[in-house]
Amino acid sequence: MATLEDIARALGVSKSTVSKALNGAPDVSAAVRAAALDKAVEMGYAIPARRSNGKRIALFIMNMRCETPDDFGYDIVVGFRKMAEPAGFQVEIIELTRAIQEENRYDAYMMQNRYCGGLFLGLSLLDPWIKEFETCKTPTVLYDNSVRGNPNVAQIAVDSFEGMQMTIAHLKELGHKKIGYLSSALQAYVYQQRYHAFFRAMDESGLPGSQSLAGSAYHISECLTQHLPRLLEAGCTAIVCSHDNLAYSVLLHCRELGLRIPEDISIVGFDDMPLCRYARPPLTTVRQDRTNLGKSAFAALSGLMNGIPLSTLLLRAELIKRSSCAAPKK
Amino acid sequence: MATLEDIARALGVSKSTVSKALNGAPDVSAAVRAAALDKAVEMGYAIPARRSNGKRIALFIMNMRCETPDDFGYDIVVGFRKMAEPAGFQVEIIELTRAIQEENRYDAYMMQNRYCGGLFLGLSLLDPWIKEFETCKTPTVLYDNSVRGNPNVAQIAVDSFEGMQMTIAHLKELGHKKIGYLSSALQAYVYQQRYHAFFRAMDESGLPGSQSLAGSAYHISECLTQHLPRLLEAGCTAIVCSHDNLAYSVLLHCRELGLRIPEDISIVGFDDMPLCRYARPPLTTVRQDRTNLGKSAFAALSGLMNGIPLSTLLLRAELIKRSSCAAPKK
Repeated sequence: MATLEDIARALGVSKSTVSKALNGAPDVSAAVRAAALDKAVEMGYAIPARRSNGKRIALFIMNMRCETPDDFGYDIVVGFRKMAEPAGFQVEIIELTRAIQEENRYDAYMMQNRYCGGLFLGLSLLDPWIKEFETCKTPTVLYDNSVRGNPNVAQIAVDSFEGMQMTIAHLKELGHKKIGYLSSALQAYVYQQRYHAFFRAMDESGLPGSQSLAGSAYHISECLTQHLPRLLEAGCTAIVCSHDNLAYSVLLHCRELGLRIPEDISIVGFDDMPLCRYARPPLTTVRQDRTNLGKSAFAALSGLMNGIPLSTLLLRAELIKRSSCAAPKK
Repeated sequence: MATLEDIARALGVSKSTVSKALNGAPDVSAAVRAAALDKAVEMGYAIPARRSNGKRIALFIMNMRCETPDDFGYDIVVGFRKMAEPAGFQVEIIELTRAIQEENRYDAYMMQNRYCGGLFLGLSLLDPWIKEFETCKTPTVLYDNSVRGNPNVAQIAVDSFEGMQMTIAHLKELGHKKIGYLSSALQAYVYQQRYHAFFRAMDESGLPGSQSLAGSAYHISECLTQHLPRLLEAGCTAIVCSHDNLAYSVLLHCRELGLRIPEDISIVGFDDMPLCRYARPPLTTVRQDRTNLGKSAFAALSGLMNGIPLSTLLLRAELIKRSSCAAPKK
């Protein structure tokens, strides 16, 4: 890896100028600062965690909220901070926009703001920085996203396949044979994973899975109007959904159609958001242990910062059986 | 989880008797001790890590050696101890036999010997304790083995699929199209994983993978006499092996057959054992970062002991390109 000396030599300035530039000292001009940052990124320099000012970690959040306990990201952030702060790290939460990604190269952004590591919640595969994660030097943990081959980037997730296995085993035990699958848009890595996991689990359990009994759409309303009627007409007695919000909408929509849950149709979600407990009937779902996801995210980031080339850290899934599933009618 | 009180109540003895029995106090009879252990295991009691005497961890090793730096397990053990000992744990290395497994239930063995966690290196799927890992209460990390659904057991491994992707990409770039695969017996979880990973990587890279160009056997000699000739006759220009020892034997055997390496046939191993560097020509292989595997194994065990339901922890694979691969002859 490049050193401060290498950067200084390449720019023809002193090492202390580079050091000051990278640390944002006020007596270095903006132009020199920009040049030093560019060169540092180009040469693959990374700020060592132990030297960075106050050991700052950036927790980027997008397409997700984390302000209140009902928000999906809340417990992840709490779990992460519970580990990071006692270890001496300052965690800054940044609402990531497309503009930030388009205006900054990732490594440069991190160096400029003196972050020694990053955690990302809620990125989609279409986000501009996704491409940069393949080569970035900054220790980076992605929740529910994965890149290949970069020893500086690790993925954390709940095991989607295990979750789908438990779901299908439960529905099969109840007597379901024709099971449909509804999903959010497949532009998110996690929804691709769950989609494949659903079919793999069907396959392993000996149930006939068919792409014709699956549907995905960006908007929930599209799932409800375009795919749900098709699945019901095809005779599905159970519908597995890629996430709880979709499952809850399917539940409400089925009821509007005059169907009883679970007598006429069984419904399963994924995530175990608080709404599952309060739905009528309460929703069966696959639990993501979000506090422990947050703790594990810090463990993974800490590993990367210590040079351990982690790739993937998966947590166990847990099926929470509530009352939205029952045996199908004969 | 059951408490000491629960066990005492079930046995009709005092809590202090149970405590003394589980801690091996000399004034408790062997019969009472055995009864307390049985009941404790049956009721799902686990010795809390913080209370166990001297925080002992058992590192079980089987089908593998770890005495000298040339042994596969050496760096894993070193990495593990480097993390465990400063954290206050005493690591005891146990050569695991079938007899130990047949004579003891796993949880009982661990409780009886006051181990608060276990790491397993080198188990095969036929080992008696494999079944017990599905339900055991003791925090347990398996290197290159996996069980489903038990939040007390995690797997650590190097990402086999990533390793095979890099291997196939490298061979494809050199111009190879017909690539064979030789493997140790598929009774080991890791060899199953690598076998599937090989075909998935071939598939993804658009090369025709065929089961007829693959072979596996328990004894290396069987691979050499039964499968290798078949692969060569079929016109394979490269052979990927499930592990370095096999690759090295294939290299020697090919040379005996009058073939030049890499001019006539390219060979790739897996593991990056020291022998790869010293082979003539040096072997291209997928590196397993064994020191970091050991460190990660402790991180995983520590997570489990703190109630984090880890399932899988994968490290990045790294392709080490040496001289055993070249472009195939026209």
